[in-house]
Amino acid sequence: MKPVRIGLIGTGNVGSGALEILALNGSELEAKLGFPLEIAAVSSRNILTKSVSNIPAGARVTADWREVAGAADIDIVCELIGGTTTAREIIECALKAGKPVITANKELMALAGPELQAEATGKATIHMEASVAGGVPIHAVLREGIAGDSAQAFFGILNGTSNYILTEIEAKSSAFDDVLGEAQRLGYAEADPTADVEGYDARSKLALLAQMAFGQRVAPGSIYCEGIRRITPFDFQYAHTLGHTIRLVCAARRTPAGLALSVRPTLIPKSTILASVLGAYNAVWVRGAAGQDTFYYGRGAGALPTGVAVVSDIMRAARDLRSGASARVSPFSFQKLAEPDLASIDDFVCGYYLRFRVKDSTGIIATLGRILAENGISIDAVLQLPTDDKANLPFVITVEPAREADVRKALLEMEALDFIVEKPLALPLERGV
Amino acid sequence: MKPVRIGLIGTGNVGSGALEILALNGSELEAKLGFPLEIAAVSSRNILTKSVSNIPAGARVTADWREVAGAADIDIVCELIGGTTTAREIIECALKAGKPVITANKELMALAGPELQAEATGKATIHMEASVAGGVPIHAVLREGIAGDSAQAFFGILNGTSNYILTEIEAKSSAFDDVLGEAQRLGYAEADPTADVEGYDARSKLALLAQMAFGQRVAPGSIYCEGIRRITPFDFQYAHTLGHTIRLVCAARRTPAGLALSVRPTLIPKSTILASVLGAYNAVWVRGAAGQDTFYYGRGAGALPTGVAVVSDIMRAARDLRSGASARVSPFSFQKLAEPDLASIDDFVCGYYLRFRVKDSTGIIATLGRILAENGISIDAVLQLPTDDKANLPFVITVEPAREADVRKALLEMEALDFIVEKPLALPLERGV
Repeated sequence: MKPVRIGLIGTGNVGSGALEILALNGSELEAKLGFPLEIAAVSSRNILTKSVSNIPAGARVTADWREVAGAADIDIVCELIGGTTTAREIIECALKAGKPVITANKELMALAGPELQAEATGKATIHMEASVAGGVPIHAVLREGIAGDSAQAFFGILNGTSNYILTEIEAKSSAFDDVLGEAQRLGYAEADPTADVEGYDARSKLALLAQMAFGQRVAPGSIYCEGIRRITPFDFQYAHTLGHTIRLVCAARRTPAGLALSVRPTLIPKSTILASVLGAYNAVWVRGAAGQDTFYYGRGAGALPTGVAVVSDIMRAARDLRSGASARVSPFSFQKLAEPDLASIDDFVCGYYLRFRVKDSTGIIATLGRILAENGISIDAVLQLPTDDKANLPFVITVEPAREADVRKALLEMEALDFIVEKPLALPLERGV
Repeated sequence: MKPVRIGLIGTGNVGSGALEILALNGSELEAKLGFPLEIAAVSSRNILTKSVSNIPAGARVTADWREVAGAADIDIVCELIGGTTTAREIIECALKAGKPVITANKELMALAGPELQAEATGKATIHMEASVAGGVPIHAVLREGIAGDSAQAFFGILNGTSNYILTEIEAKSSAFDDVLGEAQRLGYAEADPTADVEGYDARSKLALLAQMAFGQRVAPGSIYCEGIRRITPFDFQYAHTLGHTIRLVCAARRTPAGLALSVRPTLIPKSTILASVLGAYNAVWVRGAAGQDTFYYGRGAGALPTGVAVVSDIMRAARDLRSGASARVSPFSFQKLAEPDLASIDDFVCGYYLRFRVKDSTGIIATLGRILAENGISIDAVLQLPTDDKANLPFVITVEPAREADVRKALLEMEALDFIVEKPLALPLERGV
């Protein structure tokens, strides 16, 4: 069979990873597919001035993506430039020309995936394995591997930078700012780390996975999101005492009140497999109605792991082309996304870890206990590990499952108390993983 | 779009699980696919006398598989009876009629998969997600999710019964026979446990995964295989002291000498994620040239988890039918399997855990140390935990990486020594996971 011709737009981290893999694994990929993949055109804004490795001799090299996305000699278009403007133009141009699109663009797909899917239907297919959890083939799993199941919940660690920071705080008992600074020096965190440490990056990925798992059109902005800036070595010390650790967990559950979605630092049992996800790794724990628990783990980012996702998507699209599959049936997990039916975070019910910083004085526990009781919240345990700083004493109360709204109301009352030095921190105790 | 019509043959554990899921998730599956799946015919030998749940009212029910496998009104055939004779006839009949086949049959596919794949090519497709690691979608992962990568190695826990037995020995310090008896009483192990505890079941699965990962035609009988009968609570005690645990590991590696494949009880570090696979769970750790480490975990068996695999395969085949994909391109991981190029277990190089049982006397270490040295093997550590039974004293030597053939030769010499009470046990120390 003749080669399938790839047009690749964007030669940054992901694009160069995909080019390297196509060069490296070419003959194995041909043995898998029964035909070769050929890089026919490569484009990026500055491609004429910068040196890009692994572009085959015969390939067209151009700074103008339009010479690739709609070109007659291109079978499959890879949009690997990121962002939400030009990237969208590229994808729409390729779809209009009936060409399958591979993208690694989580922002765009979380924002406009459903529209693009609708535009694609009947014309071409969109593949986006690389958009979530780089090296973890979670799209193939949800779309195909366990497609027969009905997902009830999943729990993901989807941002490598924040997981690296948390597990470094845990391992070295260092403060957040010190670990972040070190991560920036090492290139593990960006100069502006907001998207990573505030959970926004993870939130886009959660939105995409929720669309795939539950078939609802979930906007990232509609998801409750809390970052990791307030997590201290004390919190790990207390969490360990409770047999738990802390991770930035993307949680998704079907509940009678709707989909419950959140991104937040969460206490999870030390014994759960999710707790062994360290450093920049990503992982997803899925609970299906029939297949029950499955777990997927791999590198969250990096040119080559993400490149594997891109190349695997290219293979899927190329197989469809050579076997003559039409785009009548979408390769998305659901043919159409339903309008979202989301539960409010207020109605979330869970045990909580409440961490206070207080000026030592008498009657603290009694006062806090009274406020919790008045809000219908039962104390599970009170913990105070030894420390010297009596003016800024951390201590922890864990509470039995309670409504989030009630917990927030209680904490707001507590914030006004004169012995409270810092806004109390509330983290859910996730028993579901 | 009109329904895709399923013919299901075999209503045991897996078949009934698939029927239950199709009944349970019907509307969600239709939302995913854009068309319904319809159980059009169900067959099993004794179906006219036994009661089978979840057969839809309109379905044809017959004791004769021939009324299903080649029938004009059936689009997809599920062979779920197991065994290697009738099952093969069913699959060949369906393929001849151009119908895609879903099978859960690991024995048959490990034995005759390549021939069946060759028979299928150009006519129809074979899907066998359910044949390995029930609830873990490892086929979708290798065939699709990380297809762009070149697998360098993988390590699997692929037999739930033996993993259950090992982790019970570990947790309860009970003897193998006691745990096996209890597992049989609870229905976790079969009356004849040979296939599970001797590693034969795991070996078939390893053969199938090696075919998918490396594109070589691997016969189960060509794989080195060692069961778990000799593992004692002592071994776990020593392994823990060394920071390790013991699992029945299916290992596969590309080496310069060929594919190195083995099924054997293996020491793996306590800190590796594979070590947290407990009870009847299955897992596979894959190392790719580009994507590096990924890990997949789920239930190894059970009607519903395995049913998810069957139904997910049905969906893949149904999508192909409705999108008009021909069988020109095989959905197998490789289009054709190459002849196997296997490394001999003799050439395997690894650190080893050597466990002895001796009559206490002087000069034991000196004698064993001399024999190891004469075979070019360096001692890493000598361990003897306290015990009372001086006539049957377990103790352990770990050795630096050495050729398996040299280790065996040394052990054979040691076996003849008069202070050796029992054939020494050698387990590899797997640092690769």
